[in-house]
Amino acid sequence: MIANEIKRKIRNIVGLENAIDSTEECFGYSYDSSFVPMSPENIPDLVVIPSTTEEISAVMAIANEYGIPVTPRGTASGRTGGSIPVCGGISLALHRMTKIIEFDEGNMMITVEAGVRTIDVYNFCAERGLFFPPDPASWKYATIGGNVGENAGGMRAVKYGVTSNYVMGLEVVLADGSIINTGGKAIKNVTGYNLTQLFTGSEGTLCVITKVLLRLIPMPKARNTLQLMFPSLDNACKTIHKMLISGVVPAAAELMDKISIQAVARHRKLEIDSSIEACVILEIDGETNADLEKQAKQIQAIANEFRVLEVRIAASQQEVDDIWSIRRGLSSAIGAMAPNRFGEDISVPRNAFPETVGLIRKIAEKYNLTIAVYGHAGDGNIHPSVLCDLSKPGEEQRVHDAVNEIFSAALSVGGTLSGEHGIGITKRPHITKALGEAGVNALQMVKQSFDPKGILNPNKIW
Amino acid sequence: MIANEIKRKIRNIVGLENAIDSTEECFGYSYDSSFVPMSPENIPDLVVIPSTTEEISAVMAIANEYGIPVTPRGTASGRTGGSIPVCGGISLALHRMTKIIEFDEGNMMITVEAGVRTIDVYNFCAERGLFFPPDPASWKYATIGGNVGENAGGMRAVKYGVTSNYVMGLEVVLADGSIINTGGKAIKNVTGYNLTQLFTGSEGTLCVITKVLLRLIPMPKARNTLQLMFPSLDNACKTIHKMLISGVVPAAAELMDKISIQAVARHRKLEIDSSIEACVILEIDGETNADLEKQAKQIQAIANEFRVLEVRIAASQQEVDDIWSIRRGLSSAIGAMAPNRFGEDISVPRNAFPETVGLIRKIAEKYNLTIAVYGHAGDGNIHPSVLCDLSKPGEEQRVHDAVNEIFSAALSVGGTLSGEHGIGITKRPHITKALGEAGVNALQMVKQSFDPKGILNPNKIW
Repeated sequence: MIANEIKRKIRNIVGLENAIDSTEECFGYSYDSSFVPMSPENIPDLVVIPSTTEEISAVMAIANEYGIPVTPRGTASGRTGGSIPVCGGISLALHRMTKIIEFDEGNMMITVEAGVRTIDVYNFCAERGLFFPPDPASWKYATIGGNVGENAGGMRAVKYGVTSNYVMGLEVVLADGSIINTGGKAIKNVTGYNLTQLFTGSEGTLCVITKVLLRLIPMPKARNTLQLMFPSLDNACKTIHKMLISGVVPAAAELMDKISIQAVARHRKLEIDSSIEACVILEIDGETNADLEKQAKQIQAIANEFRVLEVRIAASQQEVDDIWSIRRGLSSAIGAMAPNRFGEDISVPRNAFPETVGLIRKIAEKYNLTIAVYGHAGDGNIHPSVLCDLSKPGEEQRVHDAVNEIFSAALSVGGTLSGEHGIGITKRPHITKALGEAGVNALQMVKQSFDPKGILNPNKIW
Repeated sequence: MIANEIKRKIRNIVGLENAIDSTEECFGYSYDSSFVPMSPENIPDLVVIPSTTEEISAVMAIANEYGIPVTPRGTASGRTGGSIPVCGGISLALHRMTKIIEFDEGNMMITVEAGVRTIDVYNFCAERGLFFPPDPASWKYATIGGNVGENAGGMRAVKYGVTSNYVMGLEVVLADGSIINTGGKAIKNVTGYNLTQLFTGSEGTLCVITKVLLRLIPMPKARNTLQLMFPSLDNACKTIHKMLISGVVPAAAELMDKISIQAVARHRKLEIDSSIEACVILEIDGETNADLEKQAKQIQAIANEFRVLEVRIAASQQEVDDIWSIRRGLSSAIGAMAPNRFGEDISVPRNAFPETVGLIRKIAEKYNLTIAVYGHAGDGNIHPSVLCDLSKPGEEQRVHDAVNEIFSAALSVGGTLSGEHGIGITKRPHITKALGEAGVNALQMVKQSFDPKGILNPNKIW
């Protein structure tokens, strides 16, 4: 509960209409795009929708003074419950902060407010010949602040890296309301600790990100798409590995296992050759069409070594769209296979991809569950989807145990709990297993130093 | 002073011969490669030379218990005094920790102990077809632990980034002796805060780095070198900018101003056309010689637009070595121009390079000093060298004031105090000007959380 006196102070800062406390309106801020079930306990006491950094600073100073929890929020497209206000208090929604502050063509950088959607950053830059590569699946909805807060990834990470690789600097508001700027436009910068990277991926627990300085790269002039069908997952993985080690780096390298392929086939009423065990979709890019042809030839030669069954090189934009619509429609196709689905996001050393998929298959057998596996094979980021029917007795526990074992499998091969979704609420129980007690202590020490009262996005990460 | 009782405890851990306290031997650990003058006050009380992480952990636990300062040290090739034990106590020298622990060809990664020299990492990987790009000028001497501690850069940063871009994970010992591992081999990894990047560049103030996990990339199969002479610095900068924005990214792009060129000419007794105001040396790389020819052609066309006076494309390894020996010999050539020299390391947004050089020239005029300017033009990292004779009355103060103004100039164009040398001792007085009080507070909060007694490399950074 927030006292009326405090609400009044906050309304004085952001305006009456931007500090909402009716239960009906607050309800929409109690859940996100994760599998965390809705609960009235997660309804915030107050939704605050600021329009400037100064307003956020003033609101944080009040929250800090009175010990009110503050959960920052973009468009809540996160997958681990990061923006759910589990301790009540303030839901700080940044969707009004959508200004593109500066486009610096000379230095190939852009400064935007945290509430700008990722796709809008991409389009704005693309129209000017520059490329902002991170493309998380949610990029049409997700805000850039959320992407930085979670260090989002996407399909192009294999060649171009994730969000953190593009963040040059941040403007943030700390728990006590102070505003600081980190990093800057100097490409080499070793002035003080790298707070920019510390805050990137800190899931709203250390600060509120208000502005982001991003570097851009030249837009590749030519792009094409390839679809490769393999007789085994192992051969598909080996092809990708050999490509990368040969210096043929695709812009995206997506892999789907047999269950995923079957899900798509069923969904789209396609006939698929039963000997196909894995599908790889590659985006290649370069300066000229000749570059692309050369890369496609190299890829084909490597794939042949690993007995590729079918190589399709898109001959038109229509065919490109066709191939990608398979990958893009995968999540819904898999979702349609069962009443419930839990999508996970483990990340393993790239060459442990086949071993990890093998472990996941054993887990599926042990618990008699269907688990579809797809992911970003180029960077070892796997999305296992556990298909289930929670109305069946005992199913929920089995799914829970299976997911636990999937995390253990990832850690056993030197991998980690999350490649791009963050820890949030859903992976909290596993963090000590991943980082050790001394590791979690170190995170908590950092948290304690930035947010001694623990008001920023409490009960997340650990 | 460290009590004999404590020394005995430490000798029990590392062995008698690895805990030195004779003034003569300790003297060698009182200075580094910076311009900080030697002083008997900087002689450590004890030099400890451990051989394992466990020994470091045990030594740190003792140091923490008794509040003894600990200054970690690689080979002391740093330029800002980072490894000088200004508060006495222990100089913790890691040069015995030189094991290459694992070469993981499958994941293109290598794990090494902190004391391995950078050139040895490069050579070990190069022999196996893989490339570790960071090449700070000191790479023949500098240890990898020191490089990570300072987030070293080098000439190849324009295309390949700096040390931090290759650090996937760390083993570190915290102030209290606890050992933690950060990051790992998973390329996408958002499990907890990014401590790997927080520790990279933390200048030995947050932890002792004991092991480093580095990612590698395929070694380019072809390389060549170009030398371009321009009628103005501005034209040289514009050529580099246009190259980068066109997607022609050289592996290195070094720039020298007229004073630097003259220094080399004098040193090597060469005749240089007096209309030449700037020299650019480029390394280009690719998969084939045809790739190189194409790049060289593109670069030549862009340089022509900016009235390049001379383009030299190396036709043999001999010519490559010739051109680079100019750049590599630059520091000594400049050093030979005056009895004393202060080499600085500012970093600015890339397109502010010409403006910054202009500001430095004005500062040189104002203080009647010769300042040579060279640097990594591709990434905005400038090394101004103030040439002087400290035996002249008043000269020291003038140099001091000029250096101060150089820092202010860097900040005024949105740049920063250091691109690759760190803050250490020499730039401490300027850090608040660069980061603001709230920014420095944030750094101090982090420091306080990891090292509450302030024993790790005290009196550095701020």
